[in-house]
Amino acid sequence: MNNSCATSGNSGPKIRSDCEIVLELRNSGGIEIDLKSKVVVLFGDSIRALCIEILNYFGIDDAFLKVIDSGALPFVISARLESAIKQLKTTDLDFLPELIEENKYSTSSGIFRFSRLYLPGNTPSMMINAGLHSADGIILDLEDSVPPDKKDEARILVRNALRQIDFNGAERMVRINQGERGLKDLEYVVPHNVNLILIPKCESVVTVKSISEKILEIKSNKGLTNPVHLMPIIETALGVEMSFEIAKSVPEVVALAIGLEDFTADLGVPRTSEGKESLYARTRIINAAKAAGIQPIDSVFSDVGDMEALRQNVLSSKALGFEGMGCIHPRQIPVIKQGFAPGPDEIDKSKKIVLAFEDARKNGLGVVALGSKMIDPPVVARAQKIITLAIELGLLRRDWINEVTE
Amino acid sequence: MNNSCATSGNSGPKIRSDCEIVLELRNSGGIEIDLKSKVVVLFGDSIRALCIEILNYFGIDDAFLKVIDSGALPFVISARLESAIKQLKTTDLDFLPELIEENKYSTSSGIFRFSRLYLPGNTPSMMINAGLHSADGIILDLEDSVPPDKKDEARILVRNALRQIDFNGAERMVRINQGERGLKDLEYVVPHNVNLILIPKCESVVTVKSISEKILEIKSNKGLTNPVHLMPIIETALGVEMSFEIAKSVPEVVALAIGLEDFTADLGVPRTSEGKESLYARTRIINAAKAAGIQPIDSVFSDVGDMEALRQNVLSSKALGFEGMGCIHPRQIPVIKQGFAPGPDEIDKSKKIVLAFEDARKNGLGVVALGSKMIDPPVVARAQKIITLAIELGLLRRDWINEVTE
Amino acid sequence: MNNSCATSGNSGPKIRSDCEIVLELRNSGGIEIDLKSKVVVLFGDSIRALCIEILNYFGIDDAFLKVIDSGALPFVISARLESAIKQLKTTDLDFLPELIEENKYSTSSGIFRFSRLYLPGNTPSMMINAGLHSADGIILDLEDSVPPDKKDEARILVRNALRQIDFNGAERMVRINQGERGLKDLEYVVPHNVNLILIPKCESVVTVKSISEKILEIKSNKGLTNPVHLMPIIETALGVEMSFEIAKSVPEVVALAIGLEDFTADLGVPRTSEGKESLYARTRIINAAKAAGIQPIDSVFSDVGDMEALRQNVLSSKALGFEGMGCIHPRQIPVIKQGFAPGPDEIDKSKKIVLAFEDARKNGLGVVALGSKMIDPPVVARAQKIITLAIELGLLRRDWINEVTE
Repeated sequence: MNNSCATSGNSGPKIRSDCEIVLELRNSGGIEIDLKSKVVVLFGDSIRALCIEILNYFGIDDAFLKVIDSGALPFVISARLESAIKQLKTTDLDFLPELIEENKYSTSSGIFRFSRLYLPGNTPSMMINAGLHSADGIILDLEDSVPPDKKDEARILVRNALRQIDFNGAERMVRINQGERGLKDLEYVVPHNVNLILIPKCESVVTVKSISEKILEIKSNKGLTNPVHLMPIIETALGVEMSFEIAKSVPEVVALAIGLEDFTADLGVPRTSEGKESLYARTRIINAAKAAGIQPIDSVFSDVGDMEALRQNVLSSKALGFEGMGCIHPRQIPVIKQGFAPGPDEIDKSKKIVLAFEDARKNGLGVVALGSKMIDPPVVARAQKIITLAIELGLLRRDWINEVTE
Repeated sequence: MNNSCATSGNSGPKIRSDCEIVLELRNSGGIEIDLKSKVVVLFGDSIRALCIEILNYFGIDDAFLKVIDSGALPFVISARLESAIKQLKTTDLDFLPELIEENKYSTSSGIFRFSRLYLPGNTPSMMINAGLHSADGIILDLEDSVPPDKKDEARILVRNALRQIDFNGAERMVRINQGERGLKDLEYVVPHNVNLILIPKCESVVTVKSISEKILEIKSNKGLTNPVHLMPIIETALGVEMSFEIAKSVPEVVALAIGLEDFTADLGVPRTSEGKESLYARTRIINAAKAAGIQPIDSVFSDVGDMEALRQNVLSSKALGFEGMGCIHPRQIPVIKQGFAPGPDEIDKSKKIVLAFEDARKNGLGVVALGSKMIDPPVVARAQKIITLAIELGLLRRDWINEVTE
Repeated sequence: MNNSCATSGNSGPKIRSDCEIVLELRNSGGIEIDLKSKVVVLFGDSIRALCIEILNYFGIDDAFLKVIDSGALPFVISARLESAIKQLKTTDLDFLPELIEENKYSTSSGIFRFSRLYLPGNTPSMMINAGLHSADGIILDLEDSVPPDKKDEARILVRNALRQIDFNGAERMVRINQGERGLKDLEYVVPHNVNLILIPKCESVVTVKSISEKILEIKSNKGLTNPVHLMPIIETALGVEMSFEIAKSVPEVVALAIGLEDFTADLGVPRTSEGKESLYARTRIINAAKAAGIQPIDSVFSDVGDMEALRQNVLSSKALGFEGMGCIHPRQIPVIKQGFAPGPDEIDKSKKIVLAFEDARKNGLGVVALGSKMIDPPVVARAQKIITLAIELGLLRRDWINEVTE
């Protein structure tokens, strides 16, 4: 590649909401812009102005810039142009779009994480409306869904997305890469109010600690105080062996996820719908997470066309103790959220148990029964947890106990 | 509550074998006793005499004492009165009924523990005839089956029960409370020839060691030499993670039990009859116990009305390697004992294997066959274990091999 | 037993390819040989000459030697005679038959270990043609298949077999005994180009390390440089608890096997065909092995008459992640090898996935689909592994991708 010429972004018949940039630095002649866009009449001037502003910002006075626009929003154009510039020029500057007010929230460690939607980190078209689907979390992915030669420009796009896209209150997550690249990824996302970092193929406490320390360092340098949670993903047999150690490694770890595609590949077996090959790994990870007081989160379900299979998968996942799972298509979200929420039978039974125990407690009895079935304190604890969840999900009135006992 | 007035025990239409005590300390006027009892004609004088003896023992000369008796045995009355007194008066004295000769036995670490019957520690009516059911062990429970405000008086009742009730040779167990209360519980039961202490919700070696050391200290102070075995109960995900460490923590640990109601509550899942949600925990605990050379013991089965379901539960429990389970109703005992005993098929097959191997051994062969099935030394070891058990249970004559080979 | 008279080997109506030796040392009278053999006319002279050579080699001038031959090959006769001599005479000498050229190969740590055939270490008739069955490995067993009083002579027979029998390229394995006897066993096999040592009932890293060090010491003393791999067999609950530690203990460990007969005996449960009682142990061992980067190997299947049950067993074993299993009868070998090899469906699906991903890669896409099914990099990795295996097994042409894409 010519050292004075760089490209970034994407164009083509299937590309939407993106643009391709070709930038050639020159020694003289000022800025020349060749803009191709279907919306050139409406937005041509503002796109050109944005490009000139960015080039000026990075101190570039002479260049040929080609922009093949497919409906890119300004934060996408600026990400693409910055990526091209940084291929040609070493600089400490960042051209940051505004961090919108809607994105300045934090999440607490114990929130529901039923569903989290994976979004490829270099595909703006999939990000822009992601907030509409009401996933509990959205993941801007820098790892497996981004081709190796696009990983650098994905960082800048994801950074801008974190600042500009309103994800409708979803927990804002980023999956970083493994190793040194992952630590570098953090510099692009931690300063921009990311809520949670997913750690892929996590196999050691050392990895979690190095990420935790790097985040602390970035936050300290920038004077940030917002929490940045961690969700290691266990995707190998070695990760499974280390799962409890990883789960309790640092207090920032709020959940432990399993990635079954990678895990079954590591075992060298096909992933079946019954899942006998991963039962040990799944149940061990659930136990490790619960033992550490954090959330166990199930793998994504790959067959985005089979909603009934997904529903069954969610039910058996929940029955084992998982508290959420990943989504690779928005249509999976409602099935997953509904599946992890307590069902009417569960809520009903929980109400009966809570009431029976309240009765027993008032009468000073240590053990009570529902029919011939003994009810112990732990059963009540579980019922109470379900009631709390049902209330939070709007499936039960907060004052239900008064209604029933009146 | 009035500082000079205390109550203890229970009365009411459903109460049997218990009494309620109301005790008011006075500055003068001697002892006044108001006794209500259906058996006042027969036992009124002896009850009054016992109460006066106890009050004198604790140095109380002036008091009003109300006794609402529902057929309490002397050791119950004395426990209730001592409890009331100790609410009002600090004292190092204990009013100990006789430790009957029938209760002076010890148990060895390796005895069968097929069944153990839970008895709420503050309910005398359930204790008195518990020995009739021939459970391998009885558990006087100070933990979950005793309401918080009754835990102090339960200690004294359990202490007296250990000294006075003939449990018909069953292993005499007490389930203590968690934490500091549990350590204090030990002072009430260790000096009275308890055979085994159940440690509820055990999650760490530290807990087991602190209990073991406290028992040693009590035994040393009292000059006692009888063994006091320990059976930690694993009831949380963290307990499961620590199960092997707990199993091998101190030599007094003879068994490791699982408590599935608490465990599934900790996982946040319903306990199913299939039990997929606890398969990992159950099989891990079995392995941990066997690896430490101790007995793995299954959870209680809550539905006391369904004997067939219990029978199935016992069979699958035994098939996994469990060597016993808890009972919450006496009617469960015979089903459990029968289920854990070797069946006729098992005994028959074991006899054939032992005989085939004896033959092979005599002929100097290293590997032999039963039909096309190879028989290895471990298979013989298992068969021999079953034969030994069958002989001990009276299901097989000690000299069976001579009969067969004659 | 007479201190100047020793016996070794076997004779009798069912014995083939073996001989029985009775040796009596004398103070004078020279060598007297009494040879009984059906092939005395053809081989009588050479057998007698061999015996005299051996006696001379060990410095024995006066002895009565009885040889009851049942068709023993020279290396068997010499092993039997050496065994008899060593019962009567302390010596540092070994009478070694030639190490044939065909036996001078080494094996690499990552070779397929689908099938390995157990051969009792004191039964020459089963060894001689074992190479014909094309097992990936053959095991000369010094442990459970050899009666205690034959263990010394089995060592010498196995040593000679390692030098003389052409096993047709199979990995040449020896299962040693436990404890001190096992360490001594190593002296008889390590100098004779054994490829792999099976460690029975392995329960600790200390055991593996002591064996590894002993092997190193023997190799160093003899100036040997050939690799000697280790395959610990997990056969107890304690071994299961230690499995990951054992798997990663020393670099010589290339595989971790499970022995289910011993393991279920240790648990005290019957071994069922469904195997629920060992699911935890099997899946934990698979995970431990994979986490350590070595091969998990399944137990032998005992019912040598039921090929269909074996086939099902292999399929479910492979589906869990096992990469091979033991055989106790040659007829099991083809079923096992076929079962662990990738099937046509698996190869077909893998081809489609690899092709779809190659396409996507060329077009710069990070995520692609086969129908509605997303394909991630790990799925491709698994497919690629299957393709490699299929090519190595001759089930697929090395240039298949060109054929398809042309």
